[in-house]
Amino acid sequence: MAGVVIRKFDRAPLDKIAPLAGYGVATVSEALGRTGLLASYIRPIYPGASIVGHAVTVSVAPGDNTMIHVAVEVCQEGDVLVVAPTSPCEDGYFGDLFATALKARGVRGLIIDAGVRDIRTLQEMGFPVWSKAVYAQGTVKETLGNVNRPINCAGRTIVPGDLIVADDDGVVVVKQAKLDLALTNAAARAKKEEANRLKFEAGELGLDVYGMREKLAAKGLVYYDDADSFAATGRK
Amino acid sequence: MAGVVIRKFDRAPLDKIAPLAGYGVATVSEALGRTGLLASYIRPIYPGASIVGHAVTVSVAPGDNTMIHVAVEVCQEGDVLVVAPTSPCEDGYFGDLFATALKARGVRGLIIDAGVRDIRTLQEMGFPVWSKAVYAQGTVKETLGNVNRPINCAGRTIVPGDLIVADDDGVVVVKQAKLDLALTNAAARAKKEEANRLKFEAGELGLDVYGMREKLAAKGLVYYDDADSFAATGRK
Amino acid sequence: MAGVVIRKFDRAPLDKIAPLAGYGVATVSEALGRTGLLASYIRPIYPGASIVGHAVTVSVAPGDNTMIHVAVEVCQEGDVLVVAPTSPCEDGYFGDLFATALKARGVRGLIIDAGVRDIRTLQEMGFPVWSKAVYAQGTVKETLGNVNRPINCAGRTIVPGDLIVADDDGVVVVKQAKLDLALTNAAARAKKEEANRLKFEAGELGLDVYGMREKLAAKGLVYYDDADSFAATGRK
Amino acid sequence: MAGVVIRKFDRAPLDKIAPLAGYGVATVSEALGRTGLLASYIRPIYPGASIVGHAVTVSVAPGDNTMIHVAVEVCQEGDVLVVAPTSPCEDGYFGDLFATALKARGVRGLIIDAGVRDIRTLQEMGFPVWSKAVYAQGTVKETLGNVNRPINCAGRTIVPGDLIVADDDGVVVVKQAKLDLALTNAAARAKKEEANRLKFEAGELGLDVYGMREKLAAKGLVYYDDADSFAATGRK
Amino acid sequence: MAGVVIRKFDRAPLDKIAPLAGYGVATVSEALGRTGLLASYIRPIYPGASIVGHAVTVSVAPGDNTMIHVAVEVCQEGDVLVVAPTSPCEDGYFGDLFATALKARGVRGLIIDAGVRDIRTLQEMGFPVWSKAVYAQGTVKETLGNVNRPINCAGRTIVPGDLIVADDDGVVVVKQAKLDLALTNAAARAKKEEANRLKFEAGELGLDVYGMREKLAAKGLVYYDDADSFAATGRK
Amino acid sequence: MAGVVIRKFDRAPLDKIAPLAGYGVATVSEALGRTGLLASYIRPIYPGASIVGHAVTVSVAPGDNTMIHVAVEVCQEGDVLVVAPTSPCEDGYFGDLFATALKARGVRGLIIDAGVRDIRTLQEMGFPVWSKAVYAQGTVKETLGNVNRPINCAGRTIVPGDLIVADDDGVVVVKQAKLDLALTNAAARAKKEEANRLKFEAGELGLDVYGMREKLAAKGLVYYDDADSFAATGRK
Repeated sequence: MAGVVIRKFDRAPLDKIAPLAGYGVATVSEALGRTGLLASYIRPIYPGASIVGHAVTVSVAPGDNTMIHVAVEVCQEGDVLVVAPTSPCEDGYFGDLFATALKARGVRGLIIDAGVRDIRTLQEMGFPVWSKAVYAQGTVKETLGNVNRPINCAGRTIVPGDLIVADDDGVVVVKQAKLDLALTNAAARAKKEEANRLKFEAGELGLDVYGMREKLAAKGLVYYDDADSFAATGRK
Repeated sequence: MAGVVIRKFDRAPLDKIAPLAGYGVATVSEALGRTGLLASYIRPIYPGASIVGHAVTVSVAPGDNTMIHVAVEVCQEGDVLVVAPTSPCEDGYFGDLFATALKARGVRGLIIDAGVRDIRTLQEMGFPVWSKAVYAQGTVKETLGNVNRPINCAGRTIVPGDLIVADDDGVVVVKQAKLDLALTNAAARAKKEEANRLKFEAGELGLDVYGMREKLAAKGLVYYDDADSFAATGRK
Repeated sequence: MAGVVIRKFDRAPLDKIAPLAGYGVATVSEALGRTGLLASYIRPIYPGASIVGHAVTVSVAPGDNTMIHVAVEVCQEGDVLVVAPTSPCEDGYFGDLFATALKARGVRGLIIDAGVRDIRTLQEMGFPVWSKAVYAQGTVKETLGNVNRPINCAGRTIVPGDLIVADDDGVVVVKQAKLDLALTNAAARAKKEEANRLKFEAGELGLDVYGMREKLAAKGLVYYDDADSFAATGRK
Repeated sequence: MAGVVIRKFDRAPLDKIAPLAGYGVATVSEALGRTGLLASYIRPIYPGASIVGHAVTVSVAPGDNTMIHVAVEVCQEGDVLVVAPTSPCEDGYFGDLFATALKARGVRGLIIDAGVRDIRTLQEMGFPVWSKAVYAQGTVKETLGNVNRPINCAGRTIVPGDLIVADDDGVVVVKQAKLDLALTNAAARAKKEEANRLKFEAGELGLDVYGMREKLAAKGLVYYDDADSFAATGRK
Repeated sequence: MAGVVIRKFDRAPLDKIAPLAGYGVATVSEALGRTGLLASYIRPIYPGASIVGHAVTVSVAPGDNTMIHVAVEVCQEGDVLVVAPTSPCEDGYFGDLFATALKARGVRGLIIDAGVRDIRTLQEMGFPVWSKAVYAQGTVKETLGNVNRPINCAGRTIVPGDLIVADDDGVVVVKQAKLDLALTNAAARAKKEEANRLKFEAGELGLDVYGMREKLAAKGLVYYDDADSFAATGRK
Repeated sequence: MAGVVIRKFDRAPLDKIAPLAGYGVATVSEALGRTGLLASYIRPIYPGASIVGHAVTVSVAPGDNTMIHVAVEVCQEGDVLVVAPTSPCEDGYFGDLFATALKARGVRGLIIDAGVRDIRTLQEMGFPVWSKAVYAQGTVKETLGNVNRPINCAGRTIVPGDLIVADDDGVVVVKQAKLDLALTNAAARAKKEEANRLKFEAGELGLDVYGMREKLAAKGLVYYDDADSFAATGRK
């Protein structure tokens, strides 16, 4: 069933999606009801990068980077390459030459549920990667996979055109159908967080800011002055 | 049995504990007979931080940060928040708003046997965290835990008021009853290490500096000039 | 069978091996037919280091650094210490004092399938380490191991005198008998990659640069304009 | 976005899907072009079970089994409960009481990307479970999730009504739209394998049975009589 | 600070603790408010064993079984040996000879946060072990540890005399001070579960048995007949 | 450098190596000075098997079982197939058809640093496997590897003709050059263990049987009657 390349999918306007990178992964995930995050083992190869773009999805055989070559051709300005092997693999599928080709096409970065290499050069080039491993092990070009078919990557289903937001906190996927919701909620959350930040800087407590005290008491939270007064209750 | 908050515990003078950060985690652990270290999977979210403080202990339900909100109120200048979930979890319990609130109270940092998020902001703020994971997954506020009851965190028992020393090498726990011992031994060790450093820089060998040669010979260590002379012995 | 130290082995001229560090781990591994890499869990303690040198191999008991003391004496300018425990262990066998002694002898760095400590000082000293863990746990000096006997380290067999190349991508081992081959192939590969980089910067595709299109078609790769045209085929 | 229960989905006739269990997980996965397998860390809690059924999907909060209670009500004869937490968790969400309730409804078994408990009783009851962990840690009932919405479980997307086949080799998911394909291909494969088994029992070689020799020679495979004759070639 | 052996501690009457094994690990943990479980990676080396006894605690150096020899002497009828290394280790500290010696003294089994070997013989002898690993790697006798000092084992603090309950679900620790509570709560829970089991066998639902429906509705749980009716709401 | 098959290597007489299986993995490893064990993650797919044989070594590409087909032809009575991928992989390289072919040639079992499938059938056939994973994921036949070249498998170097001993405790490798040593030492150890077993059954202590008391006292071991008498010393 492998061997399929889909050339096109619908993309949202780049200026519309751009704010997602500014909100960041944590805020966007919250804006979507705490969904969409890739597994925490997907980490950036260098700190400080922050991107948003449309997913070009690639399914590769273990130890075989054929389909990444195929995928480059269908990438456009503002895309993010998302690569998942058909079974667990940490080989170094991707290095600085691929990054050079992708950068020339305006691709923003790579998400790969496998390994990557040439990481110092990638950092110097400013081509960010979020990966499962750093591993110099090379790959072959023998077996077909797919480009722009739905994939499972680090615990999430990703379809071509999904919006990928990635920063030092990890990677989150936003369905295009939820873009407006994400933007609205993220803006609201960011505004609210900024207001709360001022309160916290001023020494206010979350217990008060979020009105938690009554609810906690109702659930049975009990305060004791010190360990001795707790011990005196006989509770253990 | 959850739902208990102990407000107070005894703290040592901050100027007395301050030198522990200078000695560093490795020296302090050695000073205590090679004990007290948290598991090696607890890593700093950015390099270069070094702290010491009194543990405020927090037990949280998986995926629920209620009790961190509760704990903030009982924190004081020079404390370190220590958080452990009741079962393994890597959710992002903690982010920059919590850090803002804690910083306002003089808290030195966070140790968490779970996940953390907003790590770029945390680095910019200079609020250090040692965690099991970086993960943007948000948490709920539904289930009670405890504050300032003994907890198990990354392989160690921690009670409120324990001294927490953390740097790039990890995290070590010092019982207040052992503070004097730790300070004395660490000072002695640091002095001795400094003297040995000069010897090593001058090309002396540990075999001589530590007087190991005789003991090694007694244990049966044998030197051969090269692989051939070893092979000639028929040993394998 | 433990308790053996071999003092000498043949070394290649340092100026001859020096270029391997420049080519880097990924290129050297490719030059050897995609072989020789240590497992990907061996990571540098700080970014940016790049070394090449001759392996001095050390087999240590779990939690016991006796043999590293022994090994220092047989190290020479341009060596790399390679340490493996006889069973899995992540204790902090190695710290800044060892590094001071080794640096005084011209040793280039450490590869250890276990833990290391004092990593901030090691970075300040510029003594690079590739390790399995950062862990401050100290070790004892009770049990013999071997120096300069073959070892298994992170999935590879390493014999004394093997060339170790290490950088941000990991660690690769080059047998001296393959040094010429490695140098020749790496030079050829680097040259070819440089030429290809220009092509990729100019927007050429790997599909064309590597002549992959015909082969892919023969294997059955099929392009579809979009998801609808694929769905229309009835394939799934 | 949590708090949704979908009561119904289309099911295939049970007698039509029954043969999938007989073919087994490996053959069914092959029949689908080597796709559909859950991650290998999902293991049966006891050996020898083999099931097929329709997935009832459940999304649960970490440490919270509320939605499994909800899901029981919508289960029917021949279903398989498939449970995934919204973030990694190994708590014991499920035990013998749940199994009793499900067995009473004709449910065939449980697939859970988390923990399970009471495993001895489950084996005595003959209620099979494939899980990530065995762990007695209990869960709370505070937070909503979803029933019969698509989930990600152990690396696969599962939608309600997907066919789940599980045995000692693990778990595979078959989309209903591919049921006919799976049955046809699995039958063909089983028949072919049976024929090949006779050949292999008779001492024939896969090299001949699958006609591999010519292809291997074309790829460059070379035979040597022994290590000496290989060494004499100078290859390494 | 190592090198301490405490000969005695208080034990509860064996006939009083015996029922804990019958209730099993999951019920006992629930009876204690969902606390006391060792990490899920501690697994039995063979299925079907079920024990309860008083902990004799042993702290061992990595790769060194000296203190297990020391501990045997202080064990009594009805004890359970609990062993933890001072840093992570999976060596085979324990085999059939140790089991023979312990069985002769009436010891019920071993809990070890490390490796074990001779597991087939241990099963034949009926000496159960719950361990982190099965590994034949032998250990030395060079370095002191402690016997009957508090230890950290697989995420829990264990002090001598703590009650250890272990079965196929794992291991739970019960403080003697909570024995009465554990017995009372476990009996109540077992009785209640037995009653509920009959209800579930009769087809009743947990939603009704536990009275969950109203609470779930209040939290916002919504039922839809099928995916289409849900889609029609525009929720996503 | 892949694509090499070596047809022959020297084998020891099968009746000479047979006793190694009887001694078992733990005893054989001890007989060799605690060396030769494969990593503990290599586990038998079913309990109770025990084999010894000559290693036929196979190096395979990730997700590609070509070379196992090639290897079958060079296997003889009393061999053990040992398979390692060139980078980490847990695909199911091996199933019941391969086992049928190998059994027909008298092969004793399989050791594989990857996955295996059809495990129920393998158990029914009595063809034992020690593997890293059970995983039904199929493999392709595209890329060459080697047969009977040295490989690294689960942390050990294995050359063709090495003796493989495997049982429920794991897998150990014995170089043919050490066969006599292994047999002699294992016999001596087994005899001594049998004698000690009788002593332990009679209630003697390892402290006395192995004469440890004096050595322990010299190292500083101190006994205290109970926790109070220890506390009274002021040690901590």
